[in-house]
Amino acid sequence: MLKASILTIGDEILIGQVVDTNSSAISRAIGSIGIRVTEMTSIGDDRDTILSTLSEELHRSDIVITTGGLGPTKDDITKAALGELSGSRGNVLHEGQLEVIHRILHSRGLDVLDVNRAQALVPDTCEVIINKIGTAPIMVFRFPEERFGHKATLYAMPGVPFETVNALPDVVEDIRVHSGISTIYHGNVMVYGIAESALAKMISQWEDALPESVHLAYLPNPLTGVRLRLSVYGCTPEEGKSIVGAEIAKLRPILGDAIYSEEDDTLEHVIGKLLKEHHQTLSAAESCTGGEISHLITTVPGSSNYFLGSVISYAIAVKEKVLGVPPEVIRENGVVSSEVAARMAEGVRKLTGSDYSVSTTGLAGPGGDEHNPEGTVWIGVATPRSTKTRKYNFRNDRKRNIERFAASALFFLLSEIKEDLAK
Amino acid sequence: MLKASILTIGDEILIGQVVDTNSSAISRAIGSIGIRVTEMTSIGDDRDTILSTLSEELHRSDIVITTGGLGPTKDDITKAALGELSGSRGNVLHEGQLEVIHRILHSRGLDVLDVNRAQALVPDTCEVIINKIGTAPIMVFRFPEERFGHKATLYAMPGVPFETVNALPDVVEDIRVHSGISTIYHGNVMVYGIAESALAKMISQWEDALPESVHLAYLPNPLTGVRLRLSVYGCTPEEGKSIVGAEIAKLRPILGDAIYSEEDDTLEHVIGKLLKEHHQTLSAAESCTGGEISHLITTVPGSSNYFLGSVISYAIAVKEKVLGVPPEVIRENGVVSSEVAARMAEGVRKLTGSDYSVSTTGLAGPGGDEHNPEGTVWIGVATPRSTKTRKYNFRNDRKRNIERFAASALFFLLSEIKEDLAK
Repeated sequence: MLKASILTIGDEILIGQVVDTNSSAISRAIGSIGIRVTEMTSIGDDRDTILSTLSEELHRSDIVITTGGLGPTKDDITKAALGELSGSRGNVLHEGQLEVIHRILHSRGLDVLDVNRAQALVPDTCEVIINKIGTAPIMVFRFPEERFGHKATLYAMPGVPFETVNALPDVVEDIRVHSGISTIYHGNVMVYGIAESALAKMISQWEDALPESVHLAYLPNPLTGVRLRLSVYGCTPEEGKSIVGAEIAKLRPILGDAIYSEEDDTLEHVIGKLLKEHHQTLSAAESCTGGEISHLITTVPGSSNYFLGSVISYAIAVKEKVLGVPPEVIRENGVVSSEVAARMAEGVRKLTGSDYSVSTTGLAGPGGDEHNPEGTVWIGVATPRSTKTRKYNFRNDRKRNIERFAASALFFLLSEIKEDLAK
Repeated sequence: MLKASILTIGDEILIGQVVDTNSSAISRAIGSIGIRVTEMTSIGDDRDTILSTLSEELHRSDIVITTGGLGPTKDDITKAALGELSGSRGNVLHEGQLEVIHRILHSRGLDVLDVNRAQALVPDTCEVIINKIGTAPIMVFRFPEERFGHKATLYAMPGVPFETVNALPDVVEDIRVHSGISTIYHGNVMVYGIAESALAKMISQWEDALPESVHLAYLPNPLTGVRLRLSVYGCTPEEGKSIVGAEIAKLRPILGDAIYSEEDDTLEHVIGKLLKEHHQTLSAAESCTGGEISHLITTVPGSSNYFLGSVISYAIAVKEKVLGVPPEVIRENGVVSSEVAARMAEGVRKLTGSDYSVSTTGLAGPGGDEHNPEGTVWIGVATPRSTKTRKYNFRNDRKRNIERFAASALFFLLSEIKEDLAK
């Protein structure tokens, strides 16, 4: 198995101004072709530190990927260090990257200055992967075995996360081809509502029986649940698909409805696809989630096709007046109750004329009330045929409770939409 | 100036499952007492790697802070490595941390198992800072000069971000006291609506004229604008306050209304404080921001005191029917227009009976329409005295556009509330 180091160059990470999201994105991307990251390091824009760190990491790792240190104002330090390390006799102009630089600056109504043009200059010892959406190219240095005791490759990528993520497929493909890694097939199963440790227990027998060629990864996320990634190395796409498909088929009876997608997906995307396909519409009535459900739904491009809108009814008067929840229902049951969740869902469904609706009423904290502890939520889902409610309790801080409330509401909504469409 | 290294231990970071937010939080916290971070590293749960990396870093740095590797299932590796490194003859039970463990598990209705109790066992070579909200204590190892060529201190913190952040003030205070760093005073100025580079230009004369003892940091964030942090080292709190106060006073005429707070703050908090203080209420009508504004407002604890609710009017019918925007206004001006933004703000203000309201109508992308490019937003703010609108254009992807729309709306709203309250 090839080993990789990831190195982030730039003072802005070190002083804590910016959180480094590039390293985890790179690790996931190269992990998908079976390359293991053994260290991640951040250093400042300092020539000696860059040179010594790179040299140490190239001794230890087959692949070193750097990000950052290539902006128009500071590219001299990192680029000069790379030139020195690779024994370059000077920089050469890369015409392909220069074209991109011209295109980008022109589209912003800016002239191409020397400082911009200089970004297309690269050491004569490197190959270039063109950065299609940014000005700094990706530089690839291939070192022969005698240099660091083994064949080693260095990829120098720009630090802007958007550009890094955009260029990653090209870098991964370059690594794959040059490392002789044969085809890899990935399958995904999205699971909601089962904690990672409980899930591991539930599927341990299945996991132990997986064929040697199949690698399993647990990838949990508070908003999407756990993603199970099944990877098959060294196969044709058809073989991979068939092997993974057979294993997923065995998983279905174990996990049942907890599986909400067999692609890399989110709850709001799956709901969106389903609604679009069936020409159905959605609305929401949110109290304790304060807009988070609507926000998640509307992060999906094209959500205006099925999402009509919501009412965020923080005040009781809004619940009564806009959503039409009868005052006596609130008086008799309390605001955080099954009855109020049901009436809110029905109210917003009627108000917007949507096919489906979801509602929340609860206590995100800090503090509970006389009837319910902090972290309690009642969720309602109304469909053309019925209204159902569910209660959950979480024990996190306000922000995380809101996230868990919203994700639970989306999962409940999805289950009800599926059940309704199946009728 | 003291130098520090930050080391993250744990496979979950290396495989890219989790983004490391602890390192930047730690860097900012210790940066506030003038300590410079020179490297951040992530390694896996492997004894030899932990030992060799720690030893190298303790040679290079005065302070090494580790996070992670201390969970109930894997604490043996990291803790054993720490014991070995510090020449421990065995573990001892820390009664204070054990009490916390009992309290936490009991509050979750769980029994204290051996594996939990083991978390309160620490090498006899360390001091303990109690983790008040988690089970793994913070271990402090102080190494004499002869060991690594200089006095060095190692802090081993738990990896759960919530716990790390919670324990940071104690760690910073321990560093401050043991390093003989005298008092430090921090002042903050929150600036919105001016990009970092433009801001640097605007205040360059002021910055150049700052007294030697005052250190300035730019801390930008898409949702809160730029935070300017002014730090004074080696002073009494009164001296620090007076020095920082004098500099901020000079900054006010340069930046004017772009300064929205002189504490470390967010727009939604400042709005909340103002509304609470004046017993005023708020509502929102969101189209393109899809709930993000309401979500931000309701992340503030106690927001139910002043936030009545919102209407997310994604569909035109909801704008017309629920918010009462006349169809001819939409027909004549288009949905993304000053007139519709104004009618939405007025509509939700009337519907909820709030004192103030804010509205958005725009195109987050991907894609614009015949009249407006992607990234266009009209924002409306209604007060008891007037309704005003503003137009912005941003050039980001959908997610980032929604963030910028929401933050711009909050800033506009804040300005209008201030103006209205001043009348």
